[in-house]
Amino acid sequence: MKSLTKHLTFNIPARMDFVNITGQVEDLVRESGIQEGLCLVNAMHITASVFINDDEPGLHQDYKRWLEKLAPFDPGTDLYAHNRTGEDNGDAHHKRQIMGREVVVAITNGRLDFGPWEQIFYGEFDGRRPKRVMVKIIGE
Amino acid sequence: MKSLTKHLTFNIPARMDFVNITGQVEDLVRESGIQEGLCLVNAMHITASVFINDDEPGLHQDYKRWLEKLAPFDPGTDLYAHNRTGEDNGDAHHKRQIMGREVVVAITNGRLDFGPWEQIFYGEFDGRRPKRVMVKIIGE
Amino acid sequence: MKSLTKHLTFNIPARMDFVNITGQVEDLVRESGIQEGLCLVNAMHITASVFINDDEPGLHQDYKRWLEKLAPFDPGTDLYAHNRTGEDNGDAHHKRQIMGREVVVAITNGRLDFGPWEQIFYGEFDGRRPKRVMVKIIGE
Repeated sequence: MKSLTKHLTFNIPARMDFVNITGQVEDLVRESGIQEGLCLVNAMHITASVFINDDEPGLHQDYKRWLEKLAPFDPGTDLYAHNRTGEDNGDAHHKRQIMGREVVVAITNGRLDFGPWEQIFYGEFDGRRPKRVMVKIIGE
Repeated sequence: MKSLTKHLTFNIPARMDFVNITGQVEDLVRESGIQEGLCLVNAMHITASVFINDDEPGLHQDYKRWLEKLAPFDPGTDLYAHNRTGEDNGDAHHKRQIMGREVVVAITNGRLDFGPWEQIFYGEFDGRRPKRVMVKIIGE
Repeated sequence: MKSLTKHLTFNIPARMDFVNITGQVEDLVRESGIQEGLCLVNAMHITASVFINDDEPGLHQDYKRWLEKLAPFDPGTDLYAHNRTGEDNGDAHHKRQIMGREVVVAITNGRLDFGPWEQIFYGEFDGRRPKRVMVKIIGE
């Protein structure tokens, strides 16, 4: 069994945004030399997500509005008891649960085995500081 | 390390519906000959889900109503900017995020290592055309 | 390839609660002797979750309130057709979909490869009876 472990770092200038990281993950799959296996990609921070969907700006705008409705940003301590810790990111911990922490992608013939529109995104919900994503690939 | 890669195709006559695919996945686990490992099952389309829950028609009816409330079907472009692309499936991209893209299931003694009621479902949110599910099994 | 399979049992006295199980999973990673690999942790019951977030009581209180708003407990059969089966846990099947069934965590140098605040939780949504969590570790 072979494995590869990498941590990517992102510093997103907005509080909430989505970045297509498919190319970076594909490069790591190539670097691993693994032909058949699994690729785990996960946010290492609990106010961020890694998810797979469409690279379409209108959809991303929709996601932002929808997440803001489901778990609105509110720095006070009434809506989010979490903010009593001195944080203002209670909303981000909720948005991340909707969008998920991780994806696991099949590797077949040395490549990410994707459907036609699948792209991997880093989802940031409390940005403006460096945060990490883990890529772990195992296989042969 | 052994591996097996298969793509299943589904053509669901309704816009939204759930199909129990546990038997098909179990058959592939048997075909792989893998005794100990992991089985990834994921939708290859970004308006569909693979998830694990109960095979109970009332629950599936509840899920449909709940998802319709959280992300209602609306072919216009006010609620979903995504529909400006000419698509009418903005809602489906949202429903899929709630229900998830994938499941990873343990294989123990050559079988899916399931709790008493766990069943794997393909969740379709923009049906009436052929769409694929990936099954990737690795182990020994 | 090496593997380890364990089932943990939890009997949560409340209907809904979250328990930090990181230490138990870490012990199993050590027991497995696996240095590089993947660790799957999943609920084996369909009214429970395994998820990764912060071990902060205010946040957990927020999650409970939020989940109760998204999928309120209601033992009747109007809101949840699932309750026509004689169950009263329709809400729990919905809460579990928001929080997810499973996490997959990288193992690097014999340890869970975690970000600074990542902790693994068992999320119970229909407690007061014994329920199981699966831990499956594969690697070398």
